[in-house]
Amino acid sequence: MSLLLKGGTVVTHEMTFQADVLCDNGKIVAIGQSLNAPDGAEIRDVAGKLIMPGGIDPHTHMQLPFMGTVAADDFASGTAAALAGGTTSIIDFVIPNPGQPLMEAYHQWRDWSAKAMANYSFHVAITWWDESVHADMQTLVEEYGVNSFKHFMAYKNAIMATDDILVASFSRCLELGAIPTVHAENGELVYHLQRQMLSQGMTGPEAHPLSRPPEVEGEAAHRAISIAATLGAPIYLVHCSVEESVDAIRYAQNKGQHVYGECLAGHLVVDDSVYQDPDWDKAAAHVMSPPFRPKKHQDALWQGLQAGTLQTTATDHCAFCTAQKAMGEDDFTRIPNGTAGVEERMAVLWEKGVNSGKLTPNEFVAVTSTNAARIFNIYPAKGSVTVGADADLVVWDPDASKTISAATQMSNIEHNIFEGMQVTGLPVLTICNGNIAWDNGTLLAKAGDGKYIDRPAYAPYYHALQKRRQLATPVPVVR
Amino acid sequence: MSLLLKGGTVVTHEMTFQADVLCDNGKIVAIGQSLNAPDGAEIRDVAGKLIMPGGIDPHTHMQLPFMGTVAADDFASGTAAALAGGTTSIIDFVIPNPGQPLMEAYHQWRDWSAKAMANYSFHVAITWWDESVHADMQTLVEEYGVNSFKHFMAYKNAIMATDDILVASFSRCLELGAIPTVHAENGELVYHLQRQMLSQGMTGPEAHPLSRPPEVEGEAAHRAISIAATLGAPIYLVHCSVEESVDAIRYAQNKGQHVYGECLAGHLVVDDSVYQDPDWDKAAAHVMSPPFRPKKHQDALWQGLQAGTLQTTATDHCAFCTAQKAMGEDDFTRIPNGTAGVEERMAVLWEKGVNSGKLTPNEFVAVTSTNAARIFNIYPAKGSVTVGADADLVVWDPDASKTISAATQMSNIEHNIFEGMQVTGLPVLTICNGNIAWDNGTLLAKAGDGKYIDRPAYAPYYHALQKRRQLATPVPVVR
Amino acid sequence: MSLLLKGGTVVTHEMTFQADVLCDNGKIVAIGQSLNAPDGAEIRDVAGKLIMPGGIDPHTHMQLPFMGTVAADDFASGTAAALAGGTTSIIDFVIPNPGQPLMEAYHQWRDWSAKAMANYSFHVAITWWDESVHADMQTLVEEYGVNSFKHFMAYKNAIMATDDILVASFSRCLELGAIPTVHAENGELVYHLQRQMLSQGMTGPEAHPLSRPPEVEGEAAHRAISIAATLGAPIYLVHCSVEESVDAIRYAQNKGQHVYGECLAGHLVVDDSVYQDPDWDKAAAHVMSPPFRPKKHQDALWQGLQAGTLQTTATDHCAFCTAQKAMGEDDFTRIPNGTAGVEERMAVLWEKGVNSGKLTPNEFVAVTSTNAARIFNIYPAKGSVTVGADADLVVWDPDASKTISAATQMSNIEHNIFEGMQVTGLPVLTICNGNIAWDNGTLLAKAGDGKYIDRPAYAPYYHALQKRRQLATPVPVVR
Amino acid sequence: MSLLLKGGTVVTHEMTFQADVLCDNGKIVAIGQSLNAPDGAEIRDVAGKLIMPGGIDPHTHMQLPFMGTVAADDFASGTAAALAGGTTSIIDFVIPNPGQPLMEAYHQWRDWSAKAMANYSFHVAITWWDESVHADMQTLVEEYGVNSFKHFMAYKNAIMATDDILVASFSRCLELGAIPTVHAENGELVYHLQRQMLSQGMTGPEAHPLSRPPEVEGEAAHRAISIAATLGAPIYLVHCSVEESVDAIRYAQNKGQHVYGECLAGHLVVDDSVYQDPDWDKAAAHVMSPPFRPKKHQDALWQGLQAGTLQTTATDHCAFCTAQKAMGEDDFTRIPNGTAGVEERMAVLWEKGVNSGKLTPNEFVAVTSTNAARIFNIYPAKGSVTVGADADLVVWDPDASKTISAATQMSNIEHNIFEGMQVTGLPVLTICNGNIAWDNGTLLAKAGDGKYIDRPAYAPYYHALQKRRQLATPVPVVR
Repeated sequence: MSLLLKGGTVVTHEMTFQADVLCDNGKIVAIGQSLNAPDGAEIRDVAGKLIMPGGIDPHTHMQLPFMGTVAADDFASGTAAALAGGTTSIIDFVIPNPGQPLMEAYHQWRDWSAKAMANYSFHVAITWWDESVHADMQTLVEEYGVNSFKHFMAYKNAIMATDDILVASFSRCLELGAIPTVHAENGELVYHLQRQMLSQGMTGPEAHPLSRPPEVEGEAAHRAISIAATLGAPIYLVHCSVEESVDAIRYAQNKGQHVYGECLAGHLVVDDSVYQDPDWDKAAAHVMSPPFRPKKHQDALWQGLQAGTLQTTATDHCAFCTAQKAMGEDDFTRIPNGTAGVEERMAVLWEKGVNSGKLTPNEFVAVTSTNAARIFNIYPAKGSVTVGADADLVVWDPDASKTISAATQMSNIEHNIFEGMQVTGLPVLTICNGNIAWDNGTLLAKAGDGKYIDRPAYAPYYHALQKRRQLATPVPVVR
Repeated sequence: MSLLLKGGTVVTHEMTFQADVLCDNGKIVAIGQSLNAPDGAEIRDVAGKLIMPGGIDPHTHMQLPFMGTVAADDFASGTAAALAGGTTSIIDFVIPNPGQPLMEAYHQWRDWSAKAMANYSFHVAITWWDESVHADMQTLVEEYGVNSFKHFMAYKNAIMATDDILVASFSRCLELGAIPTVHAENGELVYHLQRQMLSQGMTGPEAHPLSRPPEVEGEAAHRAISIAATLGAPIYLVHCSVEESVDAIRYAQNKGQHVYGECLAGHLVVDDSVYQDPDWDKAAAHVMSPPFRPKKHQDALWQGLQAGTLQTTATDHCAFCTAQKAMGEDDFTRIPNGTAGVEERMAVLWEKGVNSGKLTPNEFVAVTSTNAARIFNIYPAKGSVTVGADADLVVWDPDASKTISAATQMSNIEHNIFEGMQVTGLPVLTICNGNIAWDNGTLLAKAGDGKYIDRPAYAPYYHALQKRRQLATPVPVVR
Repeated sequence: MSLLLKGGTVVTHEMTFQADVLCDNGKIVAIGQSLNAPDGAEIRDVAGKLIMPGGIDPHTHMQLPFMGTVAADDFASGTAAALAGGTTSIIDFVIPNPGQPLMEAYHQWRDWSAKAMANYSFHVAITWWDESVHADMQTLVEEYGVNSFKHFMAYKNAIMATDDILVASFSRCLELGAIPTVHAENGELVYHLQRQMLSQGMTGPEAHPLSRPPEVEGEAAHRAISIAATLGAPIYLVHCSVEESVDAIRYAQNKGQHVYGECLAGHLVVDDSVYQDPDWDKAAAHVMSPPFRPKKHQDALWQGLQAGTLQTTATDHCAFCTAQKAMGEDDFTRIPNGTAGVEERMAVLWEKGVNSGKLTPNEFVAVTSTNAARIFNIYPAKGSVTVGADADLVVWDPDASKTISAATQMSNIEHNIFEGMQVTGLPVLTICNGNIAWDNGTLLAKAGDGKYIDRPAYAPYYHALQKRRQLATPVPVVR
Repeated sequence: MSLLLKGGTVVTHEMTFQADVLCDNGKIVAIGQSLNAPDGAEIRDVAGKLIMPGGIDPHTHMQLPFMGTVAADDFASGTAAALAGGTTSIIDFVIPNPGQPLMEAYHQWRDWSAKAMANYSFHVAITWWDESVHADMQTLVEEYGVNSFKHFMAYKNAIMATDDILVASFSRCLELGAIPTVHAENGELVYHLQRQMLSQGMTGPEAHPLSRPPEVEGEAAHRAISIAATLGAPIYLVHCSVEESVDAIRYAQNKGQHVYGECLAGHLVVDDSVYQDPDWDKAAAHVMSPPFRPKKHQDALWQGLQAGTLQTTATDHCAFCTAQKAMGEDDFTRIPNGTAGVEERMAVLWEKGVNSGKLTPNEFVAVTSTNAARIFNIYPAKGSVTVGADADLVVWDPDASKTISAATQMSNIEHNIFEGMQVTGLPVLTICNGNIAWDNGTLLAKAGDGKYIDRPAYAPYYHALQKRRQLATPVPVVR
């Protein structure tokens, strides 16, 4: 099926120009002035609208089994929300239980994700270590299109990866041309502070941020970066939420290290005052890790995006409804950690980024789509508007407005961390694999329309890493 | 005339892929696997070679009248050298004498440049200020394709722009959608230190770096950036040579400011020990401003390129032969300031950047070509390998080697600051406006083959600057 | 006359211990347990109280002729306020009109200051340059106990020192063993922004901070520091009010440069919302330069004090009453710049510094007294509690509280920038030259009781500066 | 016994003045002009010489049982070397084996140290954790004058303290008013790199620095600081050797954290080229951890001292003779780690610090003596020249010269890391507890003359830490 977008303005991560865009058979086949529509093509007039690469959310957790329950948005409802927000691809996570074979977990998640409406891929978490893990990493990279592995530095006594595991796994990533990613929080400190808070009678959501202060994240960010630097591996930090993380990334980048940083739409605009809400449900709805932070950290994150210190924006979409949150009624450490956002990410970024002059529209495209595609080596198939690329597009109306509300969202939960925010700049058409998946309020995609994204190893930055490694081979002194 | 490059590997600033490239009538018209050659097309087998955007040197001074003489490379010999090195475009400078009308100087330089063999454009220097300058800036931007203006913060009693001129001119640039650029050295300090050196009997080239220590540059860099920040203007710093400048740029970028930085191939690899050469001619041959620096600054510049703090590499090509240098025999302040390099820039960057693992080949393209095109708003016509772009290309052999020497260079001078350097990775074919301009040692271009490059105002970063300006409009308090 | 303070706790900049302190003939003559009082000695029980060095305010302007009027506190009322706040010494400024001989101005100020109740000294401003200035600087250093010279980088068309003057004067300071100080604001930018504001109809006090944004100060701070670094001179920055200044100082200190920074009690606790006050008089009462700043800068200043980046706290006490402020009714650039504070400085520092855990009591002594004495080379006569030191002391009650108010202040004006602030920790006894000058609310000092403080050249840091200079002597290359 | 030093120049950490100094009964009893000697006093003419506080080396390991052998300098020979170098006090380490009761280890070390000729104290290492450790820490603080505890973050499978131990012990220190100290190297990375080196056939001393690159130290430094910050504890980093550590300390200090840093005389002047020595014995003689570093790190350390980022200089004196070093002939990981230096530290600091203009003589005193006394809370008894202080002094001849050599050293080993260095500025007289212990080449002290130094808890910086803690008490939200 062909689709012709006529009269729009193409906005890529580096330029803006008037052009029609023709999609056919899931690909972009022509970009130019006054294109002719092939027979049978659907033609959409997008004059005054912006045609941009569909959003890529590199951090979601659909139907995640976590803390004794399962995230409320599954791969169908979650990707429906994504499409409604202009996002055409997500990278979710396979998280094996400690001891569980990686391949088993991987296949489990592939089963769950079969019903996805948007495109998807998986980071695989390294939650334990033995020879089978070492071997399965190779299988995943070489046979299953996985080029990134995730490490949780928090969650002691559960999925926490200690330094020995980090060293082993980062080394293995380097051998395979993959990129290690980390959730950076010092698990020992979190554990200590959680115990301390509870012992002081602090049981409510207001204790949550106190158990995970900024230094806890900054420490782990710096540690992961240093371990990667020592080994010569690249590194990607998910959900950076504090100035300390941005500083740590910048410090390493300025030494020539290949470090990449992600931040969440939520951390960019929501602050820690939410935990003081006298309504327990509302406060608990915001419990996620890392927690929302004092306002000054928002400035640091925005500046990180502006300066290129941070490259990507994500959501960590992991939706729990009010009843699930209530599992931690008497003990904040039992509140399931997670918030949603995959539907709102792009609108929030446009409103607070572009409309404020913090980001250009091109930079918006970079941080919502292209940069993720480049880092995870699926560019230019994803993240670009070029002939030959996958026809994953969002048509954006910079003048459309709405007020974000749980009442009107796609997600299966009763709350929204952006509740009440006025945004100007919204998707009007989301095109996934060449098909209109979401049309100005109407979801057209069906479960299973999403495709699995193979991500090849050895992204372009590996060229330099391999040169350096080769030049660094040690030589004994002749004596 | 058509030209088909067959079997090569295209390397752009963001990706690497196998493809043939077809050029016709000065443009790239097709990129793809197994392209067919049109009738009459010249076909070149470039298997094993890299096809990259032709280099852009954003900082040259061909046949510059300076310090009582005229630079030895004119627009013909200078651009011949450029083509021999893989560079297809230069941005030179119109430098009016204080009091000289800008338009008069501009036309003078356009006359001189008519014989250029490669493409060219001009930054225009603001060396004085009155209403005519204010008006001519608009004419240049709107009618002559000039989108950048240069300011010398050094050269007291000559072309130095004092703070009042910087404020006036930067403000004017902002109104016009142009970008101010600066040569950052504190002219008062240079003047003071030159007098001090001479009074202490220091008359040789070894006094040159002592009269322009790093702080002198760092101060001016920081000042220009701060003035731009205050006014809300973008800013581009030419020939950053010290850690202090890199630090100043990074500091501002990290606050969200639009600051761009250039460094020279020479400063990346040559250090200040050259001024201690017992051969006066050799020492004098290296006299340029800013001077070569202690080695640690080289690390800072490379790291600046790696981290994206610096975006472009240039040469400040301004060639003076030995006899001209001798004008300063008794007084180092009279040695004409300038060195060459337009022919060697890309090979030096490849050897010391790519072969060492400091830069990927994609980053090499970015810093030798694409970034300059983006900042000066001629992308993607220049700096890209895309259908529709100007056919300015360099075919690169990553395995070819040579030893750089004045004996074999194109430039009209007797010395070479890279003399004796072994480089692996060389241009084998330079294509300018779709024609083979240089063919593995043979210059095919002729005087006048180069075209003037119109550079439109309002580069993409202006989107954010204008938003910010609009939001910052002051409002009186109602009393 | 002898005075014995019994049973107190001595707090110095580096330790805290129980001791009696005996003063005689203007000096501290004994410190120890259970001291015996000499015959006729006055004995004061200060059990539970702290005995600290009297405060030194290194930045005041008593009865300054400025902007067409004269500051409302003269050397009598101003030093009375100082004593009431625990400050026993001020360093004021001699500010010659451009063209006025330095010695003439100096003697004028000495005349005015004869009625001071507390001790005093003078920085001398360099507002112009010729050979007489060069000569008078030597006279002032060698014969009149002046070891610091002030430079205003703002106030274009009035007392602004341009770069050539800074270079000449800093060089001269270095020859004489004196320290240059600067008011760091870029005068060209201020001038431009003031004109711009007025042209946009912004005439009220709310335009004042907009005409002097943080970059304007940061630029000048960095420039002054760089000039000093280039010349090898020490440098002291008065009234640092923004993060950018703190960053610039730290950057230089970290390179081994001798840079010192001062901040004002006002900038530490008052923010720029004051300029939005709908009451013109209240807003205008806060007009001073640099202006009060957004809150984040307060954090930077406190951290500067904590880390030792900033060493001293002052007030820039320059009091103008409401009628004087009204001179700028139609044009904010004519509002006399200045606020008071000499009476409140120490209490504010204790409340917001010590009571919050930002500073230890020892650090409080350092930043309110000792550091100024060390930098300006009058330690340990001033700023210490040691045998042989001048008996300038404050007895501090850490439990006493009050609410600061213009209604109860000593200063001759109708407003107070700290109005309404609750402070715990107050002076109960101020001893100046061995005499009780202020006794818990009662002023005992009389006009003329204050003594002029001779400050010798060549403070201890000059040892390193001279070594460096000697080692840096340039040597010509033999050819 | 009385001792009168006549005609010297007293140099303290903050001032320099002419004075005689009279010692009696182990204390300084008078400082002043033309003091009269009591009957029977020994009078020494020290005209032209400097009288400074005796050096304090806060980091030594005399007769340490380590890596299968025992350090060659015991408490007698080691402190003899200290006295010969002007150092009158050392702080050594009690290092329990994992599982060994702290008190047992403490008493063992006290036994060994009874023969010390100079004064001494002990940091106690926390190498394991249980309730007895928790209890013994209190006993040591409250009954044995221990106010600092050491943590080795390296030495996996031996004495390494993992994060859970760091959290427990730092928390305990905070409760007790003690200061935690760390040897900052990531033990997991060291272990991994050692295995990697050996597997690549790298068995010689040249592999030592490759197994402990700068990031390994920087990581651990940052981690320890972050853990301390999270808990609100102070922290002291021993033997900082790389720029990354200095940066980490500064970063924290600039946020108001109480972080202190030590560097070694060796790291300030010896670089990593020593490991390339073709003579195995010479290379092995330099094996210590952290290793010697590339030269740029020396600049960072010196700047750290200059800026006050680092406060103390030490030696980590842990002497192994050539035969001991040979234990690692086939495996560099078995070379006993350690070098000497307690005799040379002060001369090296004077030569490279004061004679170069990097430090003033006052700063020399601060970094060799006073700062250590202040941080470890024994000031002003130690580290000062004041009436009432302990008579621990060094008389320094700034004009005396020598060449450092193992041939003439006191230490019981055959090599010297400073071999061949010319130094100008030497001790001529070392006075310990009021007695001349070393007289220009002649050791007068006897085994057992040294006294144990009790160090009280709650150093002055604890005032702020306790305030902050109190203000940070969490409060539940009322719902």
